[in-house]
Amino acid sequence: MKTPIRLTPAQRLDWLRLIRSENVGPRTFRALITHCGSAGAALKALPDLARRGGAGRPARICPREDAERELAAAARMGVAFLALGEDEYPAQLATIDDAPPLLAVRGQAAALKEPMIAMVGSRNASAAGIKLAEQLARDLGAAGLVVVSGLARGIDAAAHRASVATGTVAVLAGGHDSIYPPEHAPLVEALIANGAAVSEMALDYGPRGRDFPRRNRLISGLALGVIVVEAAQKSGSLITGRMALEQNREVFAVPGSPLDPRAAGTNALLKQGAVMVTEAEDVLAALRPIIGRRVEPPRPERRIEDGAPLPDPPADARARIVALLGPTPVSADDLIRLSGAPTTMVQATLLELELAGRLKRQQGGRVALI
Amino acid sequence: MKTPIRLTPAQRLDWLRLIRSENVGPRTFRALITHCGSAGAALKALPDLARRGGAGRPARICPREDAERELAAAARMGVAFLALGEDEYPAQLATIDDAPPLLAVRGQAAALKEPMIAMVGSRNASAAGIKLAEQLARDLGAAGLVVVSGLARGIDAAAHRASVATGTVAVLAGGHDSIYPPEHAPLVEALIANGAAVSEMALDYGPRGRDFPRRNRLISGLALGVIVVEAAQKSGSLITGRMALEQNREVFAVPGSPLDPRAAGTNALLKQGAVMVTEAEDVLAALRPIIGRRVEPPRPERRIEDGAPLPDPPADARARIVALLGPTPVSADDLIRLSGAPTTMVQATLLELELAGRLKRQQGGRVALI
Repeated sequence: MKTPIRLTPAQRLDWLRLIRSENVGPRTFRALITHCGSAGAALKALPDLARRGGAGRPARICPREDAERELAAAARMGVAFLALGEDEYPAQLATIDDAPPLLAVRGQAAALKEPMIAMVGSRNASAAGIKLAEQLARDLGAAGLVVVSGLARGIDAAAHRASVATGTVAVLAGGHDSIYPPEHAPLVEALIANGAAVSEMALDYGPRGRDFPRRNRLISGLALGVIVVEAAQKSGSLITGRMALEQNREVFAVPGSPLDPRAAGTNALLKQGAVMVTEAEDVLAALRPIIGRRVEPPRPERRIEDGAPLPDPPADARARIVALLGPTPVSADDLIRLSGAPTTMVQATLLELELAGRLKRQQGGRVALI
Repeated sequence: MKTPIRLTPAQRLDWLRLIRSENVGPRTFRALITHCGSAGAALKALPDLARRGGAGRPARICPREDAERELAAAARMGVAFLALGEDEYPAQLATIDDAPPLLAVRGQAAALKEPMIAMVGSRNASAAGIKLAEQLARDLGAAGLVVVSGLARGIDAAAHRASVATGTVAVLAGGHDSIYPPEHAPLVEALIANGAAVSEMALDYGPRGRDFPRRNRLISGLALGVIVVEAAQKSGSLITGRMALEQNREVFAVPGSPLDPRAAGTNALLKQGAVMVTEAEDVLAALRPIIGRRVEPPRPERRIEDGAPLPDPPADARARIVALLGPTPVSADDLIRLSGAPTTMVQATLLELELAGRLKRQQGGRVALI
């Protein structure tokens, strides 16, 4: 088992600045640490890398003062930043390839060390759906699982409410200082007594529609499995279910009548092989063998001691790699094979393009030009 | 492929007398044909066999006049007797090990040659269940399947009604002259135009509670698969589902809310691996590979040409075999192994016990003393 890292205050500030900089997402963050050796070195290298990637204007780097201000405001709110690789960081979440480098946590960080089960479902849930969500959350909580959900109206809120006493984690789509929907602010205050609210966004960030799928990966990422209680076809809850599959999480679904449109999504998941849930025991039976298993999270900051940073790619190799890219996602492996360039060079080029805002990374390591 | 048999009128009368005789069920009938060579020979051997099996009084043999009267009444009602092994006998049904030797058919015997799907469910069905049964029956009928069900109130009747135009088969628990429930007599008159009503019981036999499970094996036996639309826990529809599994039929189930007791049985079947059905295509997709497959029914009457009848077991071997039997079902294979007696001798002894009303045969060839 790897030794956990522990960031110094200066390193934590560098990490926060880096993840809050333009075009730096969790995957780019990880690639930058690998490429440059540390967040501090990455901040210095950022302008040059983005320029080489073809950025029209210099990418915006988060100013030191902004990051200091966020850290101070977080401290006042009782929000702690857990860094990926630190002991307190949730072990399951650390296993996904776009785990947030810093997770802002309010409440009991210890709750994040417990085995978790996610519950998601329709916002306009039926009375039966609400009742089932409550029953399941209560029974799973009593069995020792922490219930994770997204603080939305409907199923999410029902799941949180029924597990406030046993421990529940709300994953916010926005920042801690911008709870959505606003009427659930009291629910957050209640649940942090035994659980936690977590976010990867800046404290005052107000969530927009496109932020919810991004948030959903954290709901499934934190948990051993995801229960979809009610979901129409093409709903956000189904996206969470698919995300969970990609993250190798167990997917559970509650069945419903074929005549009920709010069961169309869950029935579809069941046809695709999700585990049917009519009572908590169905979930517990599937999770028991998993809960004992040891989880080995990756530790990106350890790259500091791992040797020299990656070489800068020569211009012709970079051009060859860029020429192979297009709007259709391709795997990095294919790029390496087709370009004939060394792996490190392909990775460095992709990083530059990403920082220049020209590249999008997708689940499974595939990349496409924007 | 085996050549179909064709009974002479005299043979058909012998078959009817034999199956209507005391202690002779479909499995015993088959064993008697094997043992004695023909139904006529079996009728002669019956008193002696039953006496050797330890019957306290002579087993009642169906008098020739009774069988003649039944055949005449059947002819007046337009009921034909199809014999197991004849070309008109439904091919799927012929594959089960307790297929009725004679199937009394009213309506279009040709419908029994089409691929069939069974639909069963609660008698006190919900409106949603009725609607789903109708939708499925209509769509499956339109796709070329004949819908089989049990003429009961609720789901059964809905399935028949929605497939009257495309062809539906009602399997009666009683005889053709004793329709149950009586208010469905007009439904029978309607469905025989394009489909059929079938029964293994004497024409005027009024069904009792214990006859329904026996009838259910014919519903699943006729079909390629069974759809359970709505079923409470421990319901008759669940028994049909289990029967279908034992007969190697596909089992389909319609999901429902865990809060709906009429979905408890179908959800349980789905957890056990039944195929989930929310629309007809789910059934068609599973059956398409099966419909093309050739079915090879067994032909018991062919034993006539197969050589000498089985030997009569000596008294000591018989005693050894009987001593091994008890109320706990054992396999015939175990009896052969443990008794050290030849297979034919064990089979003959079991037959005698059965005719004496002292033995019960179960699914999978296991036997127990009554």
